Amino acid sequence: VKFSERTLIEEILAPLANPADGSLGLTDDAAFIACAPGRDLVVTQDTLIGSVHFRDQDPAAEIARKSLRVNLSDLAAKGAEPVAYLLSLALPDGVERAWAEDFAAGLRSDQDEFGIALYGGDTVRSPGHVMVTVTACGTVPRGKMVRRAGARAGELIYVSGTIGDGAFGLAALNGGTPAIDALDARARDELAGRFLIPRPRLELAPALRAHASAAMDISDGLAGDLALLAAASRVTVEVDLCRVPLSPPAAAAIAAEPDLLIRAVTGGDDYEIVCTVPEARASAFEAAAGAAGIAVSRIGVVTGGEGPPVFRDSAGRPVRFEQASFSHF
Amino acid sequence: VKFSERTLIEEILAPLANPADGSLGLTDDAAFIACAPGRDLVVTQDTLIGSVHFRDQDPAAEIARKSLRVNLSDLAAKGAEPVAYLLSLALPDGVERAWAEDFAAGLRSDQDEFGIALYGGDTVRSPGHVMVTVTACGTVPRGKMVRRAGARAGELIYVSGTIGDGAFGLAALNGGTPAIDALDARARDELAGRFLIPRPRLELAPALRAHASAAMDISDGLAGDLALLAAASRVTVEVDLCRVPLSPPAAAAIAAEPDLLIRAVTGGDDYEIVCTVPEARASAFEAAAGAAGIAVSRIGVVTGGEGPPVFRDSAGRPVRFEQASFSHF
Repeated sequence: VKFSERTLIEEILAPLANPADGSLGLTDDAAFIACAPGRDLVVTQDTLIGSVHFRDQDPAAEIARKSLRVNLSDLAAKGAEPVAYLLSLALPDGVERAWAEDFAAGLRSDQDEFGIALYGGDTVRSPGHVMVTVTACGTVPRGKMVRRAGARAGELIYVSGTIGDGAFGLAALNGGTPAIDALDARARDELAGRFLIPRPRLELAPALRAHASAAMDISDGLAGDLALLAAASRVTVEVDLCRVPLSPPAAAAIAAEPDLLIRAVTGGDDYEIVCTVPEARASAFEAAAGAAGIAVSRIGVVTGGEGPPVFRDSAGRPVRFEQASFSHF
Repeated sequence: VKFSERTLIEEILAPLANPADGSLGLTDDAAFIACAPGRDLVVTQDTLIGSVHFRDQDPAAEIARKSLRVNLSDLAAKGAEPVAYLLSLALPDGVERAWAEDFAAGLRSDQDEFGIALYGGDTVRSPGHVMVTVTACGTVPRGKMVRRAGARAGELIYVSGTIGDGAFGLAALNGGTPAIDALDARARDELAGRFLIPRPRLELAPALRAHASAAMDISDGLAGDLALLAAASRVTVEVDLCRVPLSPPAAAAIAAEPDLLIRAVTGGDDYEIVCTVPEARASAFEAAAGAAGIAVSRIGVVTGGEGPPVFRDSAGRPVRFEQASFSHF
């Protein structure tokens, strides 16, 4: 690394912290978070590693923003409001100061957009790739964290935004998928942007707290993550594939190559939210989501019994997936 | 990795969590921590990477325990009581299930000893070495986190335990330092143990909260860390080198090779606590530390003005160090 650890902390990272809050301007070994009475702290942690979760040549600001946003997506799905994050940054030899400054600039813009501040962390030397671990802290009213394990038979299943753009964006960047390669440059850029810089659905958090029985963010594919939610809730679910919301570029690619619908539903990196809502609350949930500016789509129902999710095609036939979810190993 | 991520989480890591607390038994995307009224949460995060912070061949349980303990040491220095930790574990291909089980067993024994539980985290594939990031959460009465930036002129400087054992332990493991190589096997093992499995001084936390104006744990060398504490407090400090407490093996090595005292004072991995205490509270602090079973030694005084710490030899002459502290890059 071509600058000192002290430079990194004092000149590049400390400006991301507010000395007046519990970060103490990154001048201490730990930070403190003053919990408001009657609220719980919600904590989540994700690690991203060069060559595994991002490409080493990706712009530093994008790596930074994705690292923060995947954690913010978890807070959003749990109904939490962001407060603070810790950052562990492992840098290999040869990283230039300009890279670190771009990384910090990416964090700065997202901090401002999503209302979260740097409170602390660690800086270490990496023997290989850049590695980033972010721990995000948010708050909810006491006992109100929205869990995976709350879905009940008869509830409706909703997802936010559109599904498959992250996986299609990765395919657009890598090439080799004809129906995606055939999209125009603007459509491919739109998909790639969804992969590179996910959009945490924090605006949906209040609607989830108020109306959802269970929720999680979709990071490893709708099919696999919904299976986790169903298993945690000891229910099963049925999804109408034709109700899964698609962006225009994703819909165009699937129109050209129908099997890509499977990739949309099993691919990762959506960072949308899947949740279940009691039928009696469905219109209130839809109204709250709409007021928050987040599109939500009803894609299926929670059914009794246990078992893997059932996805049905437009003729009502169940569709089987070879691999329901991205595995990290 | 020769076992699935699901196996790692459900069979190996989930038993470290208590399903009845905010960890939800690691079945959710995030955890919650219910803050007691009138208390602040204290958060700290450290990353350890194979080949940088530990040797790849070190026993998995030792790596696990060190990863947890370096964070517990920060909580101790801040006067905090441990509550919860998050673990991000990056494993390269080829890691066997037995390795992961040993890692979890190391965490288990330390959780039980220090009263902390696993609440969540992340598991990812590493393209290189094992990497561990731990975020530890503790609590203090509101506003009572002991800071670096609280030392005032006239206060006394104390350290817990003994200084230099971590650096000497690393030297004992690596070989090549004649005065340490010449120690008997038991003495070398004692030093190596201090390096491999640091001892967080959590018993000292109440005494620090009650009596210390400033504190930090010594991870990068007494000289360098005390310089950070002094700089944060906008004071300077004077330390009598002959008062720096040494373990019998460290004292024996220094008797044979006096220059090793410099390495004891500038080497890292002590995980002792350095703090400043007003003179009027000194006897109460010493009594509280003694009652908690932690030896503390008065090594110097805080003086007015700013500037680097002054270390004096037994004749009162200032001693200069080439490099005051371990740099992480």
